[in-house]
Amino acid sequence: MIRFNCDYLEGAHPRILQKLAETNFEQTPGYGEDEYCARAKDIIRGLCRAPEAYVHFVVGGTQANRIVLSALLRPWEGVIAAHTAHIAVHESGAIEASGHKVIALPGTDGKISAAQVDEYCRVLYEDGSHDHMVTPRVVYISFPTELGTLYSLRELEELRGACDRWSLKLFLDGARLGYGLASPKSDVALPDIARLCDVFYMGGTKQGFLMGEVIVFADPAMGKGFFSLVKQTGGVLAKGRLLGLQYEEMLKDGLYFELSEHAMAMAVKLREGFAGHGIPFYVDSPTNQLFPILSDRLIDALKGSYGFEIMNRVDEAHVVTRFCTSWATREEHIEALLADLSRLARTED
Amino acid sequence: MIRFNCDYLEGAHPRILQKLAETNFEQTPGYGEDEYCARAKDIIRGLCRAPEAYVHFVVGGTQANRIVLSALLRPWEGVIAAHTAHIAVHESGAIEASGHKVIALPGTDGKISAAQVDEYCRVLYEDGSHDHMVTPRVVYISFPTELGTLYSLRELEELRGACDRWSLKLFLDGARLGYGLASPKSDVALPDIARLCDVFYMGGTKQGFLMGEVIVFADPAMGKGFFSLVKQTGGVLAKGRLLGLQYEEMLKDGLYFELSEHAMAMAVKLREGFAGHGIPFYVDSPTNQLFPILSDRLIDALKGSYGFEIMNRVDEAHVVTRFCTSWATREEHIEALLADLSRLARTED
Amino acid sequence: MIRFNCDYLEGAHPRILQKLAETNFEQTPGYGEDEYCARAKDIIRGLCRAPEAYVHFVVGGTQANRIVLSALLRPWEGVIAAHTAHIAVHESGAIEASGHKVIALPGTDGKISAAQVDEYCRVLYEDGSHDHMVTPRVVYISFPTELGTLYSLRELEELRGACDRWSLKLFLDGARLGYGLASPKSDVALPDIARLCDVFYMGGTKQGFLMGEVIVFADPAMGKGFFSLVKQTGGVLAKGRLLGLQYEEMLKDGLYFELSEHAMAMAVKLREGFAGHGIPFYVDSPTNQLFPILSDRLIDALKGSYGFEIMNRVDEAHVVTRFCTSWATREEHIEALLADLSRLARTED
Amino acid sequence: MIRFNCDYLEGAHPRILQKLAETNFEQTPGYGEDEYCARAKDIIRGLCRAPEAYVHFVVGGTQANRIVLSALLRPWEGVIAAHTAHIAVHESGAIEASGHKVIALPGTDGKISAAQVDEYCRVLYEDGSHDHMVTPRVVYISFPTELGTLYSLRELEELRGACDRWSLKLFLDGARLGYGLASPKSDVALPDIARLCDVFYMGGTKQGFLMGEVIVFADPAMGKGFFSLVKQTGGVLAKGRLLGLQYEEMLKDGLYFELSEHAMAMAVKLREGFAGHGIPFYVDSPTNQLFPILSDRLIDALKGSYGFEIMNRVDEAHVVTRFCTSWATREEHIEALLADLSRLARTED
Repeated sequence: MIRFNCDYLEGAHPRILQKLAETNFEQTPGYGEDEYCARAKDIIRGLCRAPEAYVHFVVGGTQANRIVLSALLRPWEGVIAAHTAHIAVHESGAIEASGHKVIALPGTDGKISAAQVDEYCRVLYEDGSHDHMVTPRVVYISFPTELGTLYSLRELEELRGACDRWSLKLFLDGARLGYGLASPKSDVALPDIARLCDVFYMGGTKQGFLMGEVIVFADPAMGKGFFSLVKQTGGVLAKGRLLGLQYEEMLKDGLYFELSEHAMAMAVKLREGFAGHGIPFYVDSPTNQLFPILSDRLIDALKGSYGFEIMNRVDEAHVVTRFCTSWATREEHIEALLADLSRLARTED
Repeated sequence: MIRFNCDYLEGAHPRILQKLAETNFEQTPGYGEDEYCARAKDIIRGLCRAPEAYVHFVVGGTQANRIVLSALLRPWEGVIAAHTAHIAVHESGAIEASGHKVIALPGTDGKISAAQVDEYCRVLYEDGSHDHMVTPRVVYISFPTELGTLYSLRELEELRGACDRWSLKLFLDGARLGYGLASPKSDVALPDIARLCDVFYMGGTKQGFLMGEVIVFADPAMGKGFFSLVKQTGGVLAKGRLLGLQYEEMLKDGLYFELSEHAMAMAVKLREGFAGHGIPFYVDSPTNQLFPILSDRLIDALKGSYGFEIMNRVDEAHVVTRFCTSWATREEHIEALLADLSRLARTED
Repeated sequence: MIRFNCDYLEGAHPRILQKLAETNFEQTPGYGEDEYCARAKDIIRGLCRAPEAYVHFVVGGTQANRIVLSALLRPWEGVIAAHTAHIAVHESGAIEASGHKVIALPGTDGKISAAQVDEYCRVLYEDGSHDHMVTPRVVYISFPTELGTLYSLRELEELRGACDRWSLKLFLDGARLGYGLASPKSDVALPDIARLCDVFYMGGTKQGFLMGEVIVFADPAMGKGFFSLVKQTGGVLAKGRLLGLQYEEMLKDGLYFELSEHAMAMAVKLREGFAGHGIPFYVDSPTNQLFPILSDRLIDALKGSYGFEIMNRVDEAHVVTRFCTSWATREEHIEALLADLSRLARTED
Repeated sequence: MIRFNCDYLEGAHPRILQKLAETNFEQTPGYGEDEYCARAKDIIRGLCRAPEAYVHFVVGGTQANRIVLSALLRPWEGVIAAHTAHIAVHESGAIEASGHKVIALPGTDGKISAAQVDEYCRVLYEDGSHDHMVTPRVVYISFPTELGTLYSLRELEELRGACDRWSLKLFLDGARLGYGLASPKSDVALPDIARLCDVFYMGGTKQGFLMGEVIVFADPAMGKGFFSLVKQTGGVLAKGRLLGLQYEEMLKDGLYFELSEHAMAMAVKLREGFAGHGIPFYVDSPTNQLFPILSDRLIDALKGSYGFEIMNRVDEAHVVTRFCTSWATREEHIEALLADLSRLARTED
């Protein structure tokens, strides 16, 4: 079985395991107070060209989303997001559990626009009873989105403008940030994100780490009390160096970005393979998650040898599927799948 | 200025004030442990034909919604409601603040159907990652709805069926329950509601009380710990008898229902008046909230003498408005408004 | 049965009921947007000599405590209070339910001192892992305390100093504020409280209102979003004028303070009566709550005719009790009790 | 620098790193749905002699405490714990942040007794206003405690009895469970804990894992919704196999217990070394955390070469310190420390 179900099927890049082994018996302070974390934070500030940024590591993405929003929102405030956003759908109500409404706007291919934010706020504040409603204070976007799509630099700048107009913070979920930045269709660089967002995180888990996400706040004052917030939410690792060490190893010489580019190359190849057989896509994703619409017959033929996700049915004979590439995808696996597709296409004729 | 903005413009029915004055210097235990509350609960159980029901008074509707849902939901569970539901829109995020997602389904004239609940749950539980999503545990409906509409007995029975199929509790917000039951279009009686819902409340605030809502749980076991929940949510009145006394006075001889019928008669008269001038309605409301679509010219002509709510614009020259009748509406005020409408209609010709 | 159990046994001062009756059919905007509330707020700002203060009405004391602390605390912060504080004991965990720890310091007769606050914070911040602990951000005191005692002006000034040293807000629970200010032993005036505290409330429920508490924030910026916080916590009355009307009526000509003085005079008489029979007190309370230590025999003799609270046993034959006077206490009831005490004393001889 | 500050200074036992490397490119389902987790759960159920137990892995201890208590408590309920309990002191208010009061009883050497629980509940329920107070529903104990002490089997059985008498659940925090079970002073075995507690967890982080705790509920019905609770609290690892793999590797042949015994042997040696120089202990800990009371002079002499924690001052010249041994402690490090102690003792003469 060759699996394309997601980008967290394997362990971690071997250099991470090697580094863990080499440093295993070093004795370091706990809770992220170690030198691995310190050095990794410096590298990240440098890559972001944000020397004052407040940087903090946590274990996972749902945790990062919940903690960042707890830090940004007062009890009566909520977060605007696309209706397909991870926080709106796939976190078992984590944001509501921390007391805040996710104000879901209808997304287009996973994205929301500055115009939507403007319109929502305009209508809200024209309503005389807007203080009986949830006050929006944050706009959450993901890059890439849950549907693999990307915001252009211009779209991000426009969202920044809308946020400024309505006193909103802009928060970017970058659980797959590397894959987004490495996309041949992206015109956005890491410093753009650091400059335009109030806070974002740069994912590790889906980018070849055992686990880990790094949160970057533009405003260093956000660090006040943040450790305690992370601690009380259960996001502090006793052996905090595990997070710093992974980020240092992945970022010190660009391995993080190389691996992202590899995943993108694999995605381009896979995408072209599907397209070459006339297979349409549910959404035009330029990143490592592809959403081909497959016939039930093709799914039956593939599912014994390949793993992939079944999303939703589009008609009586076709279903949206998801295939992911990642840092760990082997080119021969893509080739095997494409060869089987070719063989099956011939058979169907 | 004659106001039709809402049904909580005035104080309370004079019999309530009179009873307060008569009993003012009685010394009673606090927190609802008094005999007024005890007698009122008995009357309510009798009217509901639910001798075992657990009955509890609270101060207001948002409080009632929040407390009831806190009692019914575990941390990872949410409540299904129409997108226009009070809990989804006008409680400043009270339900989310208590940790729970409001799962908003698109309402039709303020209502959701059993079929919608079935479909939502079917799709949810077919999804292999449904435990990454909020588990629905309650269906919230309002009767009348926020748009003045009513569920028929059959619709309520169907919702009960859907709730049974998916292990959901049915919760009915009856902030204006009297007006709903008194509608000439309603085929639902109070015992039907008590029989079909797991919990509902019967509003006082909008029905001629100073304040107060009474919550009725079908299952007496819900009483366990409920006082503490109300207390910690700030819903306990030290002088708890104020709530029991009002309910006793209003229910002991049917005054509550008489006043509801008065409000309905006034609504019918007002509705016919609007309709007689060819004024359309945004929604076909059979209760005490009417939503006529008025021209900007007519609004300008009326607004100096009459109070009403501006809801939303429907085209360049017309706006949805809200006019409410209530227990306190005076027939001469309706007549004055209708006379002005007639006069203005003649002028327009 | 003559009851001294608490200070919320009766309804409201007759002038409140009269005012309610007079104004009953006025039509006013809801949610506190009416002129009664506006005028009452002005009177309160004037009495406090705090023209910029942000003033807001809520229904009850537990609600006020929860809402004020939600407004002041971030998720990782807590409130310092005496171990006997209402928020630490008698609110069914309201503060914890809103996410915050009550850091209980050992109280002396219901009070904590600036020295205790200093010591707690000094030890906390000397601990290298203090960010693994709850960060104190508010000091909560009650005036009078739950044991009837009072802070002197000097003690309040010292607490203010401690708060300034450790970046803490000072919050005073004045559920019985009038009784405290009216005590012959008090050297504190309302403007002192407004000047020294970041926020306090001035109770109505126990001072002759049907219900109601008024919260006063020194910093007008606290008003931002506060209505939404009150709304989502269930503290907004639809008929908000009920709260403003009561405060206006009670404060416009000093009735609030007159009634407080009456309660104090009754308390002094009752206290002297107990003392005259050699009955000791659990705590030396200078306000309207008295805590005489009575013998079981005396309790048995009194309990058929008088209501009072049984607090805690001090030895095999004696129990701490609580007797309260209030705005509504009738002198002949005090005299009847004292006469019975005299009679019983003679009998015991 | 040789550090004895805590038991999470190093990485993980080499067999864990080796296993991670060997299995690195296996493709497994995410979120703990893999075979490593399944096998580890079976091993744990076997070791506990609890074939029906519900077993779930999470990342850390604070997370485990918060999640377990969220699963056990309703909003108005709280948890009884020693005042020194981790949940009462060192989790930045995690339990309160999830809405629940930690009812702190005065601990003796980190422990509370059945008699204390009985007395607390007796007094509470004798109080007529107990529903104005937090309802206790769980007793939290740690084994070993935060002060290194242990409950005897009899003490655990007595606590179980008290819990049964008052409808309380017994929850045991076993962040260092292996060290507790391996103590020569312990008469408790793992099946005893599984039998007497409603829920406990068996720590990995401090026992030689990279990270990880395993929660064991006696009642399999607790599994309902539990995954969603863990997910929303941010406790789900995408690469969930990391947790199962570590537990399988550590438990399949008893390595977990061997390492615990090693830590105990080192602790005994260190303890005897301190005692041999007449150094007293703050608490008589039979596990891997030792609390010698050292003179300031000795601390100054040691702190250049050895790491240890400074706890609290006992007099002008002495301070309580903490030295921990662990799975990773090297005997030569203990010997070096003891040699230095001997040398310094001679110097002091």
